Amino acid sequence: MSVFDLIAFDADDTLWYYERLFAETQAKIAKLLTPFENPEKIDRHLSQVEIRNIQFYGYGVKSFALSMIEAAIELGNGRLSTKQVQSIIDHAKDMMTRDIQLMDYVPETISELVKIYPLAIITKGDLFEQEKKITRSGLKSHFRQVEIVGQKTPETYAHILKKLNIAPERFLMVGNSLRSDILPVLELGSHAVYIPSDTTWVHEEADVPSSEQVGFYQLGHIGELPALLEGIEAG
Amino acid sequence: MSVFDLIAFDADDTLWYYERLFAETQAKIAKLLTPFENPEKIDRHLSQVEIRNIQFYGYGVKSFALSMIEAAIELGNGRLSTKQVQSIIDHAKDMMTRDIQLMDYVPETISELVKIYPLAIITKGDLFEQEKKITRSGLKSHFRQVEIVGQKTPETYAHILKKLNIAPERFLMVGNSLRSDILPVLELGSHAVYIPSDTTWVHEEADVPSSEQVGFYQLGHIGELPALLEGIEAG
Repeated sequence: MSVFDLIAFDADDTLWYYERLFAETQAKIAKLLTPFENPEKIDRHLSQVEIRNIQFYGYGVKSFALSMIEAAIELGNGRLSTKQVQSIIDHAKDMMTRDIQLMDYVPETISELVKIYPLAIITKGDLFEQEKKITRSGLKSHFRQVEIVGQKTPETYAHILKKLNIAPERFLMVGNSLRSDILPVLELGSHAVYIPSDTTWVHEEADVPSSEQVGFYQLGHIGELPALLEGIEAG
Repeated sequence: MSVFDLIAFDADDTLWYYERLFAETQAKIAKLLTPFENPEKIDRHLSQVEIRNIQFYGYGVKSFALSMIEAAIELGNGRLSTKQVQSIIDHAKDMMTRDIQLMDYVPETISELVKIYPLAIITKGDLFEQEKKITRSGLKSHFRQVEIVGQKTPETYAHILKKLNIAPERFLMVGNSLRSDILPVLELGSHAVYIPSDTTWVHEEADVPSSEQVGFYQLGHIGELPALLEGIEAG
């Protein structure tokens, strides 16, 4: 019998690139606004409006688009055209429909692990957008369970594990966010593999647990996961 | 032992008014646009853009806001101001934050039924928006389970029932949409109570099942539900 009854993966920036897409789109929108302000001020304002609107909108591309429009109107101060507003909307639609870029080693790692473990996706964000991305990723059939949640607290994970009848100590979570994927899971007594991405949103930052912490592992990329699991299984 | 192991309720326009909020907001936005077109054309175009964008955005207030902006830009044809765009955004934020209006008989019916049955909410729509509304409704503590799903097909319900270990014939769903709340549930062999609302979106329309259909019930309002259930329990 293997050590884990379920291995769950975060999705954005764990299975596929995502923050990169926002950064690229935000850069395109910033360029559109150069007639109105200097580049630093534009960047700062776009990010500020995004953060102040999370309370109204939550996460995802639609939230981002509405905040970008609002920030652009403020930066334009009467000079932004509605043609430019439409171009922000078009950028958002492009983000929704373009190809998913899987991160390195993802397809082969998932194909290998699915032979041994039940796999799941536990992701937060916009339900509609996450479902579309999971479908478009081509990986969906490998995951027995897909949970799209509003936030990832210890209670969120406890609820999912209870529902699936899985003991916390037999659950492993893999993700790029300490705050959402790692710390709440360790708090439950489950195991967590932290794979930092180069673009983790400032909202998700937290202190890395000590390497002494029971159940905590850190990897450079997901391709190293099968070897780590073999090691754990071998005791 | 009672006849049902779980009674689930749809949320929007079953527990609280929702479509009405969209209709009211759309009317305000239409008024903003009267300089550009005649009222019928404005209404038609706002609805058309909303429908053509569902494939990109899904449902909810953010999707609605982005579609209203796009439609307004098209109707304005160069004459819409960004101040007017901001006012559409402000309307959307108002929709997100204003008080939930529970439908008649909802609080007393839920308080009564929770003494006898495990209750759940099964709703589709934007995850962030639905969670906020459920919290703001003041009813959350009555529901043992809240499922926010992307769509409501027979598979969706089968999946939820399997997860909760409930036999389909011991499940009752209550809702205002034949297409989402009633027909898929009857297909599984579960029971369904249809409570039409005066504002059911055209996308949700379908033929009403025959009154001969096993497990199908129709009520005028949710306040009639306890008496219906007593009748069923009495056999």
